[in-house]
Amino acid sequence: MKTIHSLGLRFENNRLWILDQTKLPHEEIWLESETPEDMIDHIRTLRVRGAPLIGVAAALSLGLFAEKVKEEKAIHAAGAALRAARPTAVNLMMAIDRVLDSNNPLQEAIALFEEDIALCDAMANHGAALIADGDGILTHCNAGALATGGVGTALGVIIRAHEQGKRIHVFVDETRPLLQGARLTAWELARAGVPHTLICDNMSATVMREGRIQKIFVGADRIATNGDFANKIGTYAVAILAKHHGIPFYPVAPYTTIDFECPHGRAIPIEERDASEVRGEKGNPSSPVFNPAFDVTPVELVTALVLDRGVFRGNELSGLERLRKYPEKHLVKTFAANPNQRFETHPST
Amino acid sequence: MKTIHSLGLRFENNRLWILDQTKLPHEEIWLESETPEDMIDHIRTLRVRGAPLIGVAAALSLGLFAEKVKEEKAIHAAGAALRAARPTAVNLMMAIDRVLDSNNPLQEAIALFEEDIALCDAMANHGAALIADGDGILTHCNAGALATGGVGTALGVIIRAHEQGKRIHVFVDETRPLLQGARLTAWELARAGVPHTLICDNMSATVMREGRIQKIFVGADRIATNGDFANKIGTYAVAILAKHHGIPFYPVAPYTTIDFECPHGRAIPIEERDASEVRGEKGNPSSPVFNPAFDVTPVELVTALVLDRGVFRGNELSGLERLRKYPEKHLVKTFAANPNQRFETHPST
Repeated sequence: MKTIHSLGLRFENNRLWILDQTKLPHEEIWLESETPEDMIDHIRTLRVRGAPLIGVAAALSLGLFAEKVKEEKAIHAAGAALRAARPTAVNLMMAIDRVLDSNNPLQEAIALFEEDIALCDAMANHGAALIADGDGILTHCNAGALATGGVGTALGVIIRAHEQGKRIHVFVDETRPLLQGARLTAWELARAGVPHTLICDNMSATVMREGRIQKIFVGADRIATNGDFANKIGTYAVAILAKHHGIPFYPVAPYTTIDFECPHGRAIPIEERDASEVRGEKGNPSSPVFNPAFDVTPVELVTALVLDRGVFRGNELSGLERLRKYPEKHLVKTFAANPNQRFETHPST
Repeated sequence: MKTIHSLGLRFENNRLWILDQTKLPHEEIWLESETPEDMIDHIRTLRVRGAPLIGVAAALSLGLFAEKVKEEKAIHAAGAALRAARPTAVNLMMAIDRVLDSNNPLQEAIALFEEDIALCDAMANHGAALIADGDGILTHCNAGALATGGVGTALGVIIRAHEQGKRIHVFVDETRPLLQGARLTAWELARAGVPHTLICDNMSATVMREGRIQKIFVGADRIATNGDFANKIGTYAVAILAKHHGIPFYPVAPYTTIDFECPHGRAIPIEERDASEVRGEKGNPSSPVFNPAFDVTPVELVTALVLDRGVFRGNELSGLERLRKYPEKHLVKTFAANPNQRFETHPST
């Protein structure tokens, strides 16, 4: 029997467990997911989160369901329900489509998990090549092993640079309202032994001005073909602050995050979540609230995109369209021979 | 017996009470302050907060102490201790100096309270003239009646515009780590019946991009003579985002916030506070934290300063030096006949 696991997902003897990320870092609680319905609940409540991980977890849930019920109609209904669990991260839609289109849904889901591990590894190598010894690095939200099937996207890059012996210091945006930076990224960095400092989201401009940030790496939930991308709320502000201070700004994502149907960022649906997430226990209980979970960063603010295929300018994405679906297995390789030299300065500097 | 009170401070029959701002908006608890020592504790723990209010509260505490002990040495020692309670807001230092230099300390402290009421009123009128019917307005932290002896600085401006019948909508930055926006500004706006929406600090860029913000008003804790100013952490980021989106950005403060000894923002001492404020209960308990309570916004990002004397460019401040100490009573008046016309666009637009 196949066993695969990542920091937040475990598939073993045809059973599926998720690490409840809402309880981290104080408790590590693994929950078995037995049906698409409970997986939808895990995804909506953010027990399972991170664009790549949502895709893999939903795919495995659907694959197991298909294995049990073997009824085309029920499988498609479950797939449609999973696909609709959250609206912004496109990896979810892509993963469900691949499982539904396969003759062997569970095998396809397992292949997606294995592929995500390889994609993360490739991104980590491409991105780490951009990091110099002594760099201060800012990241926002959690784009680590907890957000993927593998070593992570943005945080995978950062931890890989640390493993390569580069002396780096990471500033972690706490990432309101749900504090994925304070709860998850700080926890992952501590586990990996990477020196880091937690800050509130509104402090990063000060740290930039003090010259303590040389590069910024963030994840992505959906990338449009013009290079605009959606990511956790606050990413757009970080990109503007980076431009103001002349700091290179890199989203990191696998090709499964590119939406080739989406021409630009304004076409990306942005999830709004409950007001209670923002008000918390301390805020004024009757305050009207605006709580978008994501924002869109326009490609003008992007230095380069770190993808599994290499490092690309935003306007180079449409050339990747041939990779959109069903890529050859083990396709992961560097697109350009030495792609990194081109991307060491911010476009505005 | 003299009675004066503001939303957060009450002086009655030679007794002094403060509203515990750490308990708002859930509980309104008034605490009597009987000694400079307990006032220092109230200021350090932010039960009393806001640059103008700290100055007035410390002055009254020292005035009452002087009335009781009548010993020059003890009064000066108490003044020095109060002066050192928090390092960034210069109103505190100015208020203590004025009380110590006076032949009648308590009367001078009462005069400071009364003056602050008049200064707030003047700022409210000058700033409200900048606001148009239909404007969306962003504010950060709490620069309201709770932060002053009067109607507030930035929030006084906003509420005055509402009272004038202008239809405005206020976006309130929650203001991490201590949530003065979510707890105090939202509460003040609800009391005043001003339409408003609470957002996380990292959401303001999205709201700006959507065209929902026409003007930004913030408070100030210390203004250097070149126009740079310190204010609650996150203000500098707001100023950069304002510039990027071409939105006018106005700090609002009384002349008591100008430090005529301070040539530029790099000379302003910035208080760092405890890591626990940032980690809270949810963050990783062992994370190293950077927690500056304030940041400095350079004058290049300031459209104009709204002062009690009128609306000024940053480079016009040094001309106000003659007003630095012991202003004539009732000096509050418009400096220029019609100062507001000049300041309706952002310097970068």
